[in-house]
Amino acid sequence: MDRIEKIVLLGAGNVSTHLGAALQGTGRRILQVYSRTIGAAEILARKLDTDFTTDLNYIYPGADLYIFSLADNAMEEVLDSFPLKDVFAVHTSGSLPVDILQKAGLQAGVFYPLQTFSKTIEPDFSNIPLCIEAKTEKHQQILYHLASEISRDVRFINSKQRETIHIAAVFACNFTNHLFSIAEEILENKEISFDIMYPLIQETVRKAMQQKPSLVQTGPAVRKDDKIIQKHLKQLSTLPDYQKLYNFISQSITQNSTK
Amino acid sequence: MDRIEKIVLLGAGNVSTHLGAALQGTGRRILQVYSRTIGAAEILARKLDTDFTTDLNYIYPGADLYIFSLADNAMEEVLDSFPLKDVFAVHTSGSLPVDILQKAGLQAGVFYPLQTFSKTIEPDFSNIPLCIEAKTEKHQQILYHLASEISRDVRFINSKQRETIHIAAVFACNFTNHLFSIAEEILENKEISFDIMYPLIQETVRKAMQQKPSLVQTGPAVRKDDKIIQKHLKQLSTLPDYQKLYNFISQSITQNSTK
Repeated sequence: MDRIEKIVLLGAGNVSTHLGAALQGTGRRILQVYSRTIGAAEILARKLDTDFTTDLNYIYPGADLYIFSLADNAMEEVLDSFPLKDVFAVHTSGSLPVDILQKAGLQAGVFYPLQTFSKTIEPDFSNIPLCIEAKTEKHQQILYHLASEISRDVRFINSKQRETIHIAAVFACNFTNHLFSIAEEILENKEISFDIMYPLIQETVRKAMQQKPSLVQTGPAVRKDDKIIQKHLKQLSTLPDYQKLYNFISQSITQNSTK
Repeated sequence: MDRIEKIVLLGAGNVSTHLGAALQGTGRRILQVYSRTIGAAEILARKLDTDFTTDLNYIYPGADLYIFSLADNAMEEVLDSFPLKDVFAVHTSGSLPVDILQKAGLQAGVFYPLQTFSKTIEPDFSNIPLCIEAKTEKHQQILYHLASEISRDVRFINSKQRETIHIAAVFACNFTNHLFSIAEEILENKEISFDIMYPLIQETVRKAMQQKPSLVQTGPAVRKDDKIIQKHLKQLSTLPDYQKLYNFISQSITQNSTK
């Protein structure tokens, strides 16, 4: 087997849904969808016009690739009951090592799309970084060819690096969104619509991507404008959690700028 | 005077430079540029093909509007020495109250563009929120008309609201950029280029703007996935400041999600 043709998807969440559709778009055959939740399995199977099962014992054995897109904490349980051995399998997790599949007796790889997926929005895979890893050079090549057909940005990333990327993504994506939420709450408390922030947020991101974020830091903390910082902290006194966070991040910025 | 025709700019930084150019683009005359720094004054005056001075005593008295775009901590000093009284003046600061101009004997207003400006990049003012404020209804109307000629998004925002917006902007812009810097550092420590984050960051912002950020929070903290959080904290042990920040923001997300 030098080319993946037949694929079984395990999991019917956002990653499975969008990745399955993208792979089908390259002409690959999605043989079957497995999910523990019958509703989810059926919806995705219908979308991909294929079969589904909720029973691991009915997983089709003849696929070239088994893609595990399950919640991290469900992986072990599913792998324990997975009846096939020695088939080629990848998972799509940012934080699990490749070895988790190998330990389950599978030929192991990773196919991790570095993106946040939404149920309703069809992503454009062509610019999503696909982080791939495999245990043999042959499998590396096979995954590379498959990944290259759906994205322009395919990278060999080992499990250690992928962990690092996952942590960085928590800072750049999850934590960033939390800061947006705080801004939203602070504004809406005073009946100002969050949309007033849109151009500023877009420009912040544009600058961070055009140059390096560490080179374009602005604001009171990097200017060491203690008068403004103290004023802001005072104004945040009715929101003590955000006051603490303001203080903490400001200190972190000041420390970084004097490194 | 019902319409601003002749303008004097005080300050020659990024706001003054870009706002001056935008106003000139509407056919207004920039009479003069003042800056304490002769080099800055001369560069901006040349750009706008106008006069400049570094001496407040030579400020032209006949302008319809004096725009103070100075660093917050320079404002008081410049206002103390400003020789003209009762002329119409605005400042462009997010954090100073309108009263600072009134106390200096000027007819006071605010003209605050909510954006982060760079020296080298010409901003598109048409979608920058312009937050305006004035002490009389007549001045409100005059500023509204002027602002509407350069932006589609003009809002009457009082000094109290503007302070709130400024704090929200620190969270959504300054602090966000700091999180990007941390991601950059974490990645580059392992020789992974920060550009791998670009599609994720763009999608994070797109989602936060399409829906509300508070509705699209993702990641281990909102899932209360303590296993991943503990793993990340352990991996951050060589970067204790970021470890603390990770813990702090994760707790804030968890608290918010159970509100």
